[in-house]
This record gives sequence, C-alpha cells and structure tokens, in this order.
Amino acid sequence: MNFTGANILSVEQFDRDSIAEIFATADRMLPYARRQKRTRVLDGAILGNLFFEPSTRTRVSFGTAFNLLGGEVRETTGMESSALTKGESLYDTARVLSSYSDVIAMRHPKSGSVAEFAQGSRVPVLNGGDGANEHPTQALLDLYTIKKELAYHGHDVDGMHICMMGDLKFGRTVHSLSRLLAMYNKVRFTLISPRELAMPDSVLDVLAQAGHQVTVTDQMSGSSDADIIYQTRIQQERFTTPQEADMYRGKFRLNSEIYTKHYKPNTVIMHPLPRDSRAEANELDNDLNQNPNLAIFRQADNGVLIRMALFALTLGVADIVDRYETEVPWFSDKRNV
Amino acid sequence: MNFTGANILSVEQFDRDSIAEIFATADRMLPYARRQKRTRVLDGAILGNLFFEPSTRTRVSFGTAFNLLGGEVRETTGMESSALTKGESLYDTARVLSSYSDVIAMRHPKSGSVAEFAQGSRVPVLNGGDGANEHPTQALLDLYTIKKELAYHGHDVDGMHICMMGDLKFGRTVHSLSRLLAMYNKVRFTLISPRELAMPDSVLDVLAQAGHQVTVTDQMSGSSDADIIYQTRIQQERFTTPQEADMYRGKFRLNSEIYTKHYKPNTVIMHPLPRDSRAEANELDNDLNQNPNLAIFRQADNGVLIRMALFALTLGVADIVDRYETEVPWFSDKRNV
Amino acid sequence: MNFTGANILSVEQFDRDSIAEIFATADRMLPYARRQKRTRVLDGAILGNLFFEPSTRTRVSFGTAFNLLGGEVRETTGMESSALTKGESLYDTARVLSSYSDVIAMRHPKSGSVAEFAQGSRVPVLNGGDGANEHPTQALLDLYTIKKELAYHGHDVDGMHICMMGDLKFGRTVHSLSRLLAMYNKVRFTLISPRELAMPDSVLDVLAQAGHQVTVTDQMSGSSDADIIYQTRIQQERFTTPQEADMYRGKFRLNSEIYTKHYKPNTVIMHPLPRDSRAEANELDNDLNQNPNLAIFRQADNGVLIRMALFALTLGVADIVDRYETEVPWFSDKRNV
Repeated sequence: MNFTGANILSVEQFDRDSIAEIFATADRMLPYARRQKRTRVLDGAILGNLFFEPSTRTRVSFGTAFNLLGGEVRETTGMESSALTKGESLYDTARVLSSYSDVIAMRHPKSGSVAEFAQGSRVPVLNGGDGANEHPTQALLDLYTIKKELAYHGHDVDGMHICMMGDLKFGRTVHSLSRLLAMYNKVRFTLISPRELAMPDSVLDVLAQAGHQVTVTDQMSGSSDADIIYQTRIQQERFTTPQEADMYRGKFRLNSEIYTKHYKPNTVIMHPLPRDSRAEANELDNDLNQNPNLAIFRQADNGVLIRMALFALTLGVADIVDRYETEVPWFSDKRNV
Repeated sequence: MNFTGANILSVEQFDRDSIAEIFATADRMLPYARRQKRTRVLDGAILGNLFFEPSTRTRVSFGTAFNLLGGEVRETTGMESSALTKGESLYDTARVLSSYSDVIAMRHPKSGSVAEFAQGSRVPVLNGGDGANEHPTQALLDLYTIKKELAYHGHDVDGMHICMMGDLKFGRTVHSLSRLLAMYNKVRFTLISPRELAMPDSVLDVLAQAGHQVTVTDQMSGSSDADIIYQTRIQQERFTTPQEADMYRGKFRLNSEIYTKHYKPNTVIMHPLPRDSRAEANELDNDLNQNPNLAIFRQADNGVLIRMALFALTLGVADIVDRYETEVPWFSDKRNV
Repeated sequence: MNFTGANILSVEQFDRDSIAEIFATADRMLPYARRQKRTRVLDGAILGNLFFEPSTRTRVSFGTAFNLLGGEVRETTGMESSALTKGESLYDTARVLSSYSDVIAMRHPKSGSVAEFAQGSRVPVLNGGDGANEHPTQALLDLYTIKKELAYHGHDVDGMHICMMGDLKFGRTVHSLSRLLAMYNKVRFTLISPRELAMPDSVLDVLAQAGHQVTVTDQMSGSSDADIIYQTRIQQERFTTPQEADMYRGKFRLNSEIYTKHYKPNTVIMHPLPRDSRAEANELDNDLNQNPNLAIFRQADNGVLIRMALFALTLGVADIVDRYETEVPWFSDKRNV
C-alpha cells in the first residue's frame, strides 16, 4: 500500500508487504528512541492528539513518538471538554481540528467513530482505539514484539505456536492480533479461556479459513511447547454471578510456579498492559518481573517505534529521517540497561 | 496603535488602521499555516495557554498558532485544578504564571477577569473570552473572514449587507462583530431574531450613531440581497416556556431549501461554531456542507491566521518572521484541497 | 554528590557542597529565564511531567524550566485518567512511562510513592511533592531565595534570624526548609504558631542537634530583628472546633500595619504560595504587595531557576548549556521590570 497521506484505521487494510514495510521502518527508529541520535525531520509539524477516552500510556506513547521525530503535540483529552457533547458532528469536529494539525491520533469510546472522523479530516488519521472495534497500533506492536522476540531465539512467526489466555471474548487486542497473524503461515493457536469468555466465532473462522491449527480449551495443560503466551485480564464483571467468577479464580493466571510447571524455559510472556498487580487479581504476578522472558515492557517500548514508523510513513518522511540528524548531548545511559 | 508588548483585551481598543495592520499580518501568515514553509521566529518562546473554562477549538487554535511560529505551549485547563478556587487573587495568579511564559492566552468564565489578570501580568495577555464580556480574537476572525469572502466576489466591507440571525441577545460574537463593523462605512444590517432575543439597545445605538442602516425583524423574508448571513444558535433554555420555544421552532434555521428560497446565489454563510448538527437542532443543516458559500470552516482556519498575527505583533516579530524560515519536508497536500 | 543520572527525592540527600553546586548552576540559568538569551541544549529531550495530584504552579514551573533548556514536555494530570486506579503497580507505571521520556517530574498524593516509582524508572526522577513527605524543589527554591535576598542586604545564611509563622505542624515546606537550614551555622529560629500547630519534635531535634538557637512561641512580639519571615497558611480545618479557630484568628497574620509594628524595615517576607487573598483569610494581606521586601513572587521566579538547574545537573549538561545558545528576537522587556 502507499502510506503517504493514508489513514491507519484497521488491521484489515494491511497485507504482509505493508506490515514488512512498517516493521522495517520501526527498526530504523530504534537509535532515535534509544537517544543514540536525534532527528528533526518533523520540526514544525503538529500532532493533534485527541483522546476522547482516557488512556494514559497510548496517549503518551503517540505524543512521545511524534516528539522523537521533532514534532510538536497539541492535546485534547476527555469528552466533557468537547463540543461533541453539544451536538457537534464528528464531521465538523474533524474539519476544524484537522486544520490545526498535520496528522491526528484519535481514541474515542464509540465503535466506528475514528473512521467517521477520518472522512472529514484534511490530514491523515491514526486510530488509537475506537471502542470495542479496533486498536491497530496495539495489534502492530504486538506482532512486532512477537517477531523480534522469536528472532532473538532464532525463530519466525511462520510456524510458531502462540497461546492466548484469559478473556478472549471481549479482549479487543487478541482479536486484532489474531487477524494479523492469520496472514502468516502455519501458526498454531491454543486459546485458553473460561467457556463464557471464548474467542468469538468470527475470529475463529478467519483463522480456520487461513488454514491455521486452532485448539480451544479451558485448561493450561497441553500447551507446554508454546513460543508465546499472550495473557489478558479477566474482569470480574464479565461473569453473571460471583460464584461463577470464583469457579475460575486462579485458573487463567501466570506466576513463576505456574509458568515453570507448564511451559518450556524460553516461552515469551506478553500482556497488553496495564496489568492488575494486586494479589487478588490472579493475572500476571510480580514474581515474574525478573524473568528475562517477560516481554511486557519491551512491548511498551516497541509501541513507540511502531507509532514513529506510522507517523514517518503517513507523512512521507520515512526515507529522509536521517537527513535531519543531530547529536544527543544529554545523559541517557540508564534507559538502555 | 503600537502592538509590541500590548494586551489584546477588547475590540474597543482598535481603529481601522490597527485592524488593517492585523489583517495584513494575517495575510502574511498564510503560507506558514498552509505548511508551504515554516518559521522558527519564536523558537524558545513559551505561550501560557490558560483555559479556566473549557473551549477545545479556541484553546487548540491559540496553541497551534503559537507552534506555527516556532514556540512552545504550556497549558492549564479547568477551574478545579487551579489555586483560584483556594482564594488566590487573579493578581497573584498573574504575577506567578506570567513569569513562566512570554505571552498569555486566557479564557475565564467571569466577565472582566482577563483584564484584571492583565494588570498583574508581566507579559502581553490575549483575551480568549471572558464570560459574557468579550472574545476579541473571534470578532477579528469573523471580520477577516467577511473581508476575504467579499473580496473573492469583488466586494468590500464598506457598503455590504449583512444578516445576523438567531440569538442576538446573548450571542457575544454578534455584539463584538457589530462593534467592529460600526467602524466601516454604510453597512446594512438586517437583524433577524425572536423578539425576546433581539440585539441589545447598546449595540443598536453604536450602529445608529455610526450612521448604518439597521432593520430589526423576526422574519427572514426581505433580506434576499444579503452578502453575508451570520447564523448563531438559539438555545432552548433561553425561553421561559417550552410553548414559547415551539412557537419559534425552525424559523431561524438555514438548510439548503431555505437558503435557496430566501437568498441570492452567492450569499456567504457564517457561524461561530460549534454548530449543533442534530436534526432537532434547527440551526444550520448538514445539507449545506457541500455548498461553496458555506464559509464556516474557512472561518475556523482564519482563526489560526489572526492568532498568529496577534502573537507576532504583540511579541514584536511581525516583520522578521521570514528571516527564520525553513522548508517543510513532510506531506501536506491533503489539507489545501 | 554526582548529579548525573541521579534521582532528586529528598532534601536529606544533599550536603552543603551539593547545594552550593545547585545554586551556582541556578545562577547561570538566570539569563535564559530572563530571555536575554536562549539555549537548545535539551532540544529533543522529553520531560514526563506526571502530576497525579493537581498543582498548577509546580507543574507549569517544571514544564517551563524544561522548555527553557530546549526540551519538550509530555504531561499527565489527574488520578482518574491513570491506570493506577485499575490496580497497576507504581513499578509497572514507572517501567512504561519512564521509557517515554528522558527525565520525570512527579507529584503524587501518597507519601513515599515517588521513591517507589523511581525504583522502576529508567530515567532520573525529580520529586515534585509526595503527600505529607517531601517537596525538595520547594525547599531548595526557598533556601535559594533566602540566600539571594540576604545577599542583597549584605548578609549570609550563616548567622541569620528566621521567623517561621503559621501552621508549622502540617506545613511540609517549613519542615524541609528547616532540615536544609540545619546544615548551616548559627541560625536563629523563631517558630510562631498556635500551640496545636507547633513544629514537630522530629524537626526541633534536628535543629537542636545542629546547635541552632530555637525559640518556640505563639506570639509575634520579640522577633523584631528577624531577617526573614516565612509565613504559611493556617487552614481552619486544622482545629477541632470553630471556637478554637476563632481564638487564634488574626494572630498569625501579616499586613502592612502588623509588619511595620513588629519587624525591622528590611525584613524579607516569604510564603510558599498560593496565598488566600480573601479578606477573611487572615494570612498575608494585599496591602503589602508594593513593599519591596515582599519576596513571594521572586520566590516563584527562583523555582524555575532551581528546576532548570536540577534538570541540567541530572541530565549531565550543566557545563555545556552555553554551547547551544541562540538569540531571543522577540519582545521581552516587560517581564524584567
């Protein structure tokens, strides 16, 4: 696809070639994100960072990515401070706010709203999450992380075995990631969840049609040769009764003991973050924090690279980033240990 | 007037010469706002963008204007996060916050508050709206839009015919715009509103004293040769009873059919935005969106030019903006279609 | 101490030499803060300004200080918009958010939280106030102000007489300032407060052990030769009954008459701000605003210098700031009168 001037609204718009282009661009962003050098290619450009729904880390990640390319960020957060509540159409909002910036990153609680906004926008729009619908930059950073983590162990996405665990019904991230993975070859999926929170048929159909091997289960056992475990949170409110919730308590949880018992030593652990670190959460325990296979913070770091890549591509500067390089004179050694 | 170091608090402080200077400066800002080139003249300067009352588009417009001149923006929004609620005087707030910036843009719900703040400020203050009192940058961008739209049709502000329609009693923008227009020659005003929401006598007196021809009516008919229709919203709450509101429903509304029936083909449509686009709003319908005479989004664009001009003038850099020019290497073709 | 890469969490981590280094660095920041020249030494660096508790002036002061060194600011305000409320640990928050920036300034309502955050952070962390615990940049700017104000009168911190007045029990600033002053020689402290709001023993012990002369009283009389009066607010809620509050009303208040009656002509007046300027507040009256000894706004100005110094030191650029100098072409004469 031709990225220049394009909107990034859905994982559906990509093929393997366009994903490869995004990832190759993200790779070239690493020295800037690590502050080994600095670029000013977008000096003077403005990101309109529109978060009509709160999401601290996605918002800051977009803003940081734009700053690292040399640009400025004008931010709008919260629904209440917006004219949208006074009956303004998304078309009007888009026509006006897009004229204030060179590119828009937008999150909104309503499904389809970002695509609707994009129709009125005069600059490229990046979907930062529109309700239950899509969150394409999250799916891309997840896939990019899988690719990099597997490459470290000498493996590839084609032929890998991934376990997705937790709430697979409402978890938007696992749906989008599955759709992306469907484009690869011979992936094995083990989908572990309470029956009530199983992966929707619409996603299962995509995987089946693409010829992947899918196992649906509510047991962790039998997935010991997984290359990746992708853990998502089960929210107590998803169950109709507390008794039901109790029945599943602790069965879809990872801690050091469960990890060691069930998985091979190099299995990579992922999670879309934030995780609930309270003892009663039964999600992903802190005793795995020092485990080198815990990739959750590398995942967050990769989000900046992916967003830098998408800004550079949609604004047509991916190939000239290094023409605007300067040095980094300040201390930055602590970040890369 | 000498703009350097001045506060911009009220339309009352301008004469035709100073307005001409602002507009000439705004004209020169166009290539920067269109991203045809870039200036860094205010690189290192800080705008204190103080919005003690929410107003997304005015806030972002000020911030964008400052970024486009190369400056940085430090923002404060909301009343609750402010020391003002703990009994701090506006004088104290001004003394402290003005020392953090090179210029202040401020909106506040209380009439007169921005002028009070300006007395304690150590940097120029631009009024971004102080309650029912003033919103001078809106009045200037409205007048600038009228001038540009008329020039496109070969006309001038002197001798034009403007219709103002809707809530003319509480609409701050039509008051300020009328005061500015009073400085021009032989303007015809047709003021269309429910009798309960008619233009206040104080404004009518200014227009009469300046020798303009003013018609006050509650009917749209008879204004077919208007050059400009300036539409404002009628809020249901303005009426004492729902019956009263019902009586006027749809009578001060523009849509494609009404526009074609009542006005000549080139009549320019303006609105201070945001507009309520819901069907029941009876305000300014979406079926006019493709009409080339709908100037409402050009109005919003002009707001950035006017605010850039005011920053450049009050900070004394209007004449040296082009000395700090650099190129724009990123994609920006979509915005100017 | 070696500042490069260090966290600034508590006044306890300084000795007189390190304080002297901070103050010497702050002195060198003055021409930049006054816009006599500009530096871009941190061009491309990002400050993560995390204010989980509102504090307009501290937040803007940190942001401004970073902008004045050439850097960008990514801001997060409020608790509700944070994943912390969903059970995320401070360690996780720190790991993720610190990777988005080059340095963090953080305020949080919980005592000890900033130090906990710093353990997960991959960049230096500056404490912007953690509940009742510490606010080291405030203590440093207070001491810096005392030093500069006394120097103006030909005096030094060693041997001075300081009056602290108001709520000395809950006022975090007077505790931290006292601990810093304890490192100097032969300081006289007069501590004036209602008995219920007296300075805690823990602080008195530090002062006694350092050999300073301390007078604890609930009367203003007898402190007429003070060099500094440091006034803090007494909040009505601190008293158990309104009768108790009434008993003390107006006894720990400064206005022009009380100041002239009780203190020598050059006594410097300080206050951590914001002050309650309402008539019934009985705190620090507006009739002292024109008194040249009122140092409260110079104190706020000094906050920017101290924060610039701490950013420059922790990021290891204090000695190369002037290598990245550029001119200031805009009007800035009003600010320095």
